Amino acid sequence: MPPPTQHSQRPVSKVSPFRVMSVMERAAELEKQGRNIVHMEVGEPDFSTASPIIEAGKQALDKGLTQYTPAAGIPELRDCLVAHYSERYSVDIARERIFITPGASGGLTLLANLLLAPGEGVLLGDPAYPCVRNFIHLMSAQPQLIPVTMEQNFQPTIEQLEQHCKENTRGLWLASPNNPTGTILERPLLQAVSDWTQQKNLHLLVDEIYHGLHYVDDLPSVLEFDQSSFVVNSFSKYFGMTGWRLGWIVVPEEFVSTANSLAQNLYISASSIAQYAALAAFSSEARVIFEERRRAFLERKEFLSKALKEIGFLFSDNIQGAFYIYANISKFSNDSEHFCQQMLEEHGVAITPGTDFGEYECNNFVRFAFTTDFQSLELGVERLRKALQPG
Amino acid sequence: MPPPTQHSQRPVSKVSPFRVMSVMERAAELEKQGRNIVHMEVGEPDFSTASPIIEAGKQALDKGLTQYTPAAGIPELRDCLVAHYSERYSVDIARERIFITPGASGGLTLLANLLLAPGEGVLLGDPAYPCVRNFIHLMSAQPQLIPVTMEQNFQPTIEQLEQHCKENTRGLWLASPNNPTGTILERPLLQAVSDWTQQKNLHLLVDEIYHGLHYVDDLPSVLEFDQSSFVVNSFSKYFGMTGWRLGWIVVPEEFVSTANSLAQNLYISASSIAQYAALAAFSSEARVIFEERRRAFLERKEFLSKALKEIGFLFSDNIQGAFYIYANISKFSNDSEHFCQQMLEEHGVAITPGTDFGEYECNNFVRFAFTTDFQSLELGVERLRKALQPG
Repeated sequence: MPPPTQHSQRPVSKVSPFRVMSVMERAAELEKQGRNIVHMEVGEPDFSTASPIIEAGKQALDKGLTQYTPAAGIPELRDCLVAHYSERYSVDIARERIFITPGASGGLTLLANLLLAPGEGVLLGDPAYPCVRNFIHLMSAQPQLIPVTMEQNFQPTIEQLEQHCKENTRGLWLASPNNPTGTILERPLLQAVSDWTQQKNLHLLVDEIYHGLHYVDDLPSVLEFDQSSFVVNSFSKYFGMTGWRLGWIVVPEEFVSTANSLAQNLYISASSIAQYAALAAFSSEARVIFEERRRAFLERKEFLSKALKEIGFLFSDNIQGAFYIYANISKFSNDSEHFCQQMLEEHGVAITPGTDFGEYECNNFVRFAFTTDFQSLELGVERLRKALQPG
Repeated sequence: MPPPTQHSQRPVSKVSPFRVMSVMERAAELEKQGRNIVHMEVGEPDFSTASPIIEAGKQALDKGLTQYTPAAGIPELRDCLVAHYSERYSVDIARERIFITPGASGGLTLLANLLLAPGEGVLLGDPAYPCVRNFIHLMSAQPQLIPVTMEQNFQPTIEQLEQHCKENTRGLWLASPNNPTGTILERPLLQAVSDWTQQKNLHLLVDEIYHGLHYVDDLPSVLEFDQSSFVVNSFSKYFGMTGWRLGWIVVPEEFVSTANSLAQNLYISASSIAQYAALAAFSSEARVIFEERRRAFLERKEFLSKALKEIGFLFSDNIQGAFYIYANISKFSNDSEHFCQQMLEEHGVAITPGTDFGEYECNNFVRFAFTTDFQSLELGVERLRKALQPG
């Protein structure tokens, strides 16, 4: 069968591959050729899953817990999250509002299907995590990008929301902390955004997958303000469980029943083994490991910020969470893809071009991930210094 | 936020929950009250995952293989499937055409997004697996149901395909063996169906997730005939890995690149642990266990068929695969939901009403699953006999 004739009109035609994947593939090729590459492109913690979770996974296997679970997840794990919201954010979330998903990806798939119809619009910050745009495209809906600058902490203002809201706008999807910028929705802005969406009768979805990996004292969840909002979260980042594919979402009470039907249809259940293993993520033993790792990320951030500033990259001093530095390269280039290619091919440093994350000024930005060990970061910095401060 | 105002026009409004889930939930309630229930409703093998796979999973955990994998899956597992197609079906499939997915559900999500646009139609048999209709609805596309009867082995004829094909029809999605009917696309029909879709320039998707669990000598894969077709398969049924959430799809060469972008966006990768564990599914040790289990299913089928016939259920003698008997109940009732409710509440036997699987004659049919041990099947049959052959 030939590909469909009207390809350009199909939702899938609007989905672009991640450019970071091409960087990773090319880096792997160079490594095969014997080159040493410093990996600052990957959005995945370099730490393996913490041992208490590994052990709990093995125990689940020994017990033969290899069947489907309820579509919304095992009650024990949902109860851990109820306690998590209570302890950490002082907010009561009924268990039935929490759905365990196959990664945050599974959660976003469910929420896109729950909330969108063809022709509708969703407001997004630009830059943002590229999948989010693509999930909207796949529903034949329309991402409505709001350019956000470093000066405004890469988060939209209420004035901008007003300006960009159109007749077909149905919702606002934000991330706190944001990938690639590392900035959060601070408490007053989050409150204002929540008020604004409620007043406009739009849905508000907040990606909180980097919660826990933050370097500020106050990182509020939108659920502290707004029980009508939607949250997507993950066991991948702070809890270090990427390859297990486990996340969760929180939906308002009135969406519970429909979300349950969607979960049954879209994925039946998340991995049983991952779910039983994740129970150990709430042990004090695991918490100690997560907090150690958070401190390691903080140290890397401090080191890398200082070094990149000295080389001439421009970025905010206010990296509030996640493990990225989104840096302006205009001192060196106005073509981020070419710049990244050059750094990789000629200098052995893999970084991600801004073109992965949106349209606004994307050719003037690159994303550094500090998801590699200190020694590699030092080597990477040395190579960048040689490349960009010759003589 | 109130639910969207035009709810009836949203794709999600067309998605219904599985009725089998309500049966399961009600059965669990009754069990909590102390009742004994025979489970003939569940579409999941009662066997735990085979020990070689369990051990391989534990080894993967010990090795810390807990990171994302390539979106298409680990090369080793894709190579096992290349060998599987070669050995079992004598067909060469290039590794790049095989994508490891988070369950068959993840595969269907990917294929629906790959192949469909709003307003397009897809031909389906009725009855069929309920999710398939829902995946089509979620793309704002239209399931075009073809009523199929027991007399035609519950598979469509070419004449019916001609009749039901409309201007907006883009594809034909079939299952072999089919859930709930257990019938396969026999070689001549599969060839004819493939010829017909190619001649009409429609895509052909075949659900082959029950391959391996078949009771006939010849169960062809569509890939033996047609390299332009799409296949969805799973490690859940024959390989007994339901809770791990692992499946695969095969796409034509020209769709590889787009499928890869979709995999990256929709789920990043399938579970790394499940993928490494599944390598052991291709060991001779595991194969012996799977074949024992297949024989157990065959024995259950023989027993249950004979017993249900004696009670007065009507169904085909030709149950070719899967673990279901789709039985006509018109001797007892013309309301399958009420009949199932009665069997559960009054007689402690959980079965699934035909209304889960389509529209055609669905009130005259129920699905029995022989996914429970022999002793329970005997008890279930005894209860049904008492209920339906009184005196």
